[in-house]
Amino acid sequence: MHEKIGFVGVGRMGAAMARRLKDCGYPVVAIYDAFAPAAIELANELESEAVTQLAAVTAAADVVFTVVTDDAAQLGLYGETGDSLFVGADGKYFVNCATVSPKVPIEIERRAELVGASVLEACMASSIPQARQGTLYLMCGGDDAVFAHLKPVLEKLSAALRLIGPTGRAAQVKALVNMVMNMNTAALAEGLGLGGALGLDLTMLREVFAQTGANSQVLKTDGEDMQKRAHECFFSAAHAAKDSGIAWTLGCEVGLNLPLAAAAKLQYDRMTALGLGQIDKSGVAELTFKGRHG
Amino acid sequence: MHEKIGFVGVGRMGAAMARRLKDCGYPVVAIYDAFAPAAIELANELESEAVTQLAAVTAAADVVFTVVTDDAAQLGLYGETGDSLFVGADGKYFVNCATVSPKVPIEIERRAELVGASVLEACMASSIPQARQGTLYLMCGGDDAVFAHLKPVLEKLSAALRLIGPTGRAAQVKALVNMVMNMNTAALAEGLGLGGALGLDLTMLREVFAQTGANSQVLKTDGEDMQKRAHECFFSAAHAAKDSGIAWTLGCEVGLNLPLAAAAKLQYDRMTALGLGQIDKSGVAELTFKGRHG
Amino acid sequence: MHEKIGFVGVGRMGAAMARRLKDCGYPVVAIYDAFAPAAIELANELESEAVTQLAAVTAAADVVFTVVTDDAAQLGLYGETGDSLFVGADGKYFVNCATVSPKVPIEIERRAELVGASVLEACMASSIPQARQGTLYLMCGGDDAVFAHLKPVLEKLSAALRLIGPTGRAAQVKALVNMVMNMNTAALAEGLGLGGALGLDLTMLREVFAQTGANSQVLKTDGEDMQKRAHECFFSAAHAAKDSGIAWTLGCEVGLNLPLAAAAKLQYDRMTALGLGQIDKSGVAELTFKGRHG
Amino acid sequence: MHEKIGFVGVGRMGAAMARRLKDCGYPVVAIYDAFAPAAIELANELESEAVTQLAAVTAAADVVFTVVTDDAAQLGLYGETGDSLFVGADGKYFVNCATVSPKVPIEIERRAELVGASVLEACMASSIPQARQGTLYLMCGGDDAVFAHLKPVLEKLSAALRLIGPTGRAAQVKALVNMVMNMNTAALAEGLGLGGALGLDLTMLREVFAQTGANSQVLKTDGEDMQKRAHECFFSAAHAAKDSGIAWTLGCEVGLNLPLAAAAKLQYDRMTALGLGQIDKSGVAELTFKGRHG
Repeated sequence: MHEKIGFVGVGRMGAAMARRLKDCGYPVVAIYDAFAPAAIELANELESEAVTQLAAVTAAADVVFTVVTDDAAQLGLYGETGDSLFVGADGKYFVNCATVSPKVPIEIERRAELVGASVLEACMASSIPQARQGTLYLMCGGDDAVFAHLKPVLEKLSAALRLIGPTGRAAQVKALVNMVMNMNTAALAEGLGLGGALGLDLTMLREVFAQTGANSQVLKTDGEDMQKRAHECFFSAAHAAKDSGIAWTLGCEVGLNLPLAAAAKLQYDRMTALGLGQIDKSGVAELTFKGRHG
Repeated sequence: MHEKIGFVGVGRMGAAMARRLKDCGYPVVAIYDAFAPAAIELANELESEAVTQLAAVTAAADVVFTVVTDDAAQLGLYGETGDSLFVGADGKYFVNCATVSPKVPIEIERRAELVGASVLEACMASSIPQARQGTLYLMCGGDDAVFAHLKPVLEKLSAALRLIGPTGRAAQVKALVNMVMNMNTAALAEGLGLGGALGLDLTMLREVFAQTGANSQVLKTDGEDMQKRAHECFFSAAHAAKDSGIAWTLGCEVGLNLPLAAAAKLQYDRMTALGLGQIDKSGVAELTFKGRHG
Repeated sequence: MHEKIGFVGVGRMGAAMARRLKDCGYPVVAIYDAFAPAAIELANELESEAVTQLAAVTAAADVVFTVVTDDAAQLGLYGETGDSLFVGADGKYFVNCATVSPKVPIEIERRAELVGASVLEACMASSIPQARQGTLYLMCGGDDAVFAHLKPVLEKLSAALRLIGPTGRAAQVKALVNMVMNMNTAALAEGLGLGGALGLDLTMLREVFAQTGANSQVLKTDGEDMQKRAHECFFSAAHAAKDSGIAWTLGCEVGLNLPLAAAAKLQYDRMTALGLGQIDKSGVAELTFKGRHG
Repeated sequence: MHEKIGFVGVGRMGAAMARRLKDCGYPVVAIYDAFAPAAIELANELESEAVTQLAAVTAAADVVFTVVTDDAAQLGLYGETGDSLFVGADGKYFVNCATVSPKVPIEIERRAELVGASVLEACMASSIPQARQGTLYLMCGGDDAVFAHLKPVLEKLSAALRLIGPTGRAAQVKALVNMVMNMNTAALAEGLGLGGALGLDLTMLREVFAQTGANSQVLKTDGEDMQKRAHECFFSAAHAAKDSGIAWTLGCEVGLNLPLAAAAKLQYDRMTALGLGQIDKSGVAELTFKGRHG
């Protein structure tokens, strides 16, 4: 029999995951969002219940998925006083999907032990369509037994599922993936921007890149968008700034000098300063094409 | 009937191309190298003749391939006084394969017109095995008629052959390809270096990168080498510094700010300063792995 | 007769200013600090009253000085609802001394007009001893009449006092002063760090710097401290990071590329990441001396 | 009785020094310049002899001053074969004034020992008017006895004269002085450029800088020139690029990461790429003022 599922954070990503689990036969019994109308709308769609207390999600569900934006939001769900997912959490499971600093899941795990809850990091290296279709790339961090217990429901969400290591490891790997992706994206934007400024045919240039050492996954996903200025948001510049910042900070902590990571982080920070934080990270090309932005 | 071929510059790349054309039935009639023993050795192997004057190559051959290292070397072959490939060059064809600043082929073309010679840029985005097997990725810049005339012999060298545009355009595209490749390489070195410093399993990390937005061509060609410190030279750090420098300078000239290109260039310059200029560009990881270099 | 003075934010800087005005005969009638014990202690010392509501400061005083840390704290004093310095503020004067983004004083001025209050930016380019002795360098932004009204009390605090321009201008100039100072400091740390790594006598090197084009105000104030690792806090690295960030963001907004400002900002951010945010900005030398930090 | 003086390299700096020594009663007996007309002109002025062989300078003089531009030029004067200052150099003294890599004077000293010559580094931290008036800031590296022997003539050139240490040390200190000066210059250009873009009165801004922690020697020497675009050359951007490059390379060699030095070096390199290498280093402001250069 299927476990009862709760969702906290039903932006586009969280909502897509909730729809997918509902499609797979899981009862989605409680939905919470800091923006209450989002919870209500999705609850109506999924014949679920929108709640306004975190503790109500825990009370109703066996497994709670959280899909929020950053360190503060993630940690805020698990307060040690006041309303919290960890009120009445003994025996409950929590799957945290935000890209956060590795210290955050470690702190949540510490708090979980105090209340008898089980937590798992589940970092997603894919986007909204994959979430909806259950073909995410899921990297988990946590206890073997917790992972084993949650594996059936996680398999409904993912095409690839792996336990990276103990708690905190998934956040590290996710930060590294996004750091490299963000650098490659900013690098591609420089290549195409310079090509454009030289008057080259950018469609030709992308073809050449694709067939040479300049090829990359972001060439496939972002190259044409950069050329056409199609920056509808799949992964926002603000998120890129945050994730590159997490990785750069990890580098500082271990005493490494990472000049391209720093340069890429500054480009996404610049987008935020220019009011471009909410467009897609491909919009970094707006900074490197002549006559777009400064 | 096959045209008679001359070669100037028979390092590993030039020698591989000469062997390939010989295999395809082209007579290689004259070989010149600034390091005379290299010319003699290859001439013996290919039943050709080693010459010590540039003009002697032109005199003997219908089509001369030049494969040298940088702007100064490339331009030095086509002096307007003294020994030069352009002595007695009326009606002869010259194919220039170095990665150089775009202004260099334009200057050579100007000089070619004065002596009745035909020149073609042929930039190679592949490495020595491809040269030997005739499967290079060849990007040409020059006149349509010149390209058409040389197409049969170029096809023997290449799996992909395209005329990018007029003279100078191939050098631009090549500089862009290498600029992006070099940035992606330096970015990957940061990701793996940080992963290593955090104690992550780097084989696992490379697998994750390969399946996510962090994937790139250089992950395939350089990732394992970075992990294993296998920096046998396919494309040297010194070449990477030079090519990134050409691209960065083009960016300055058109008024662009390219922070990741600059950061990558400095990393390859740093390798040179540390005496690592002759190892492969994958050696940039020596700068980003804890406890390797500073 | 002296106006009645209120103080909000009595850290070391604010407390020194309050003591100075008291010495000059001004009655300090109300003191507020987010950390209540600080307000109580200073109130006892100055025979003033510690209050726990912002509105109480406004009620008691004719002129309120605020000395807080950042944009959020500064703006938070002037809430449009709830407890706020702008409750009952008609006819009152407010002097804001924090180094903040230029948009903050502009927003505060907008709110001030709604309630009939007068506000003045008063940015301080000096440190605690100058505050205590009334020899600050004070740069003001605001209305001519407001400045004229407050001039007598401001003169008690300053050795140099000037009205830079309308509201927001002082914050701009202050951000620029600190941006340049922070860059010069980070630059000096590189020079001395490299000198140390080369085995040079750093006392000799500082003497040479002082007599050549390398001389600067920060050589006087920070040079010896860098050599001796004496990083007692006069101006914290965290403040330097904040102020350089404000200036760098202004640069983005006007479309400028400021690579040294960015590099300096990253150095102070790195200090914060390494837990060095609370030492003096001279501690940036900890990053550039061999064997101190990474 | 005064020693006989020879000069090699009589650009503006070398010529000013030669004139000064002549004024002080020293016979200037031989002048060499790679650009022969410069030698002839100065020889006419000083009643000296222009020579076209380096060895002729050594033959005629007791003490030879060399004032050339870079590593290659400096080392080229002391060839081990062919025409060279070290032909017939036994017992002669050589004072080398170029700003070069520290390895260059060490190599020259090695060669000097083979031929019985005495060499001294004499790095100058001042400019042409000081050379003419004999008020240079002279930092020497070399042997105590050599320094003592040359002290009388060096005192005619300098207001401050010091022996920094053994050969190579003066070059290190000079590189550090210029590195810090160049960084402060580029930093100032960012501060004034941003001030200009914000619409601030730059004369006022320079006054504020001069009275605060933003003050520096380059504010005095370059600040007004940046504002007024008066970039007549005292110390060229190309020299700044070279010297910052020497220092940055020293940093690489000792394993330091010097991000502001790197950023400053790139700015001067950018000037060279834009054809601005021959204007004064104050011209770095052309890169940071809106609407001047990219």
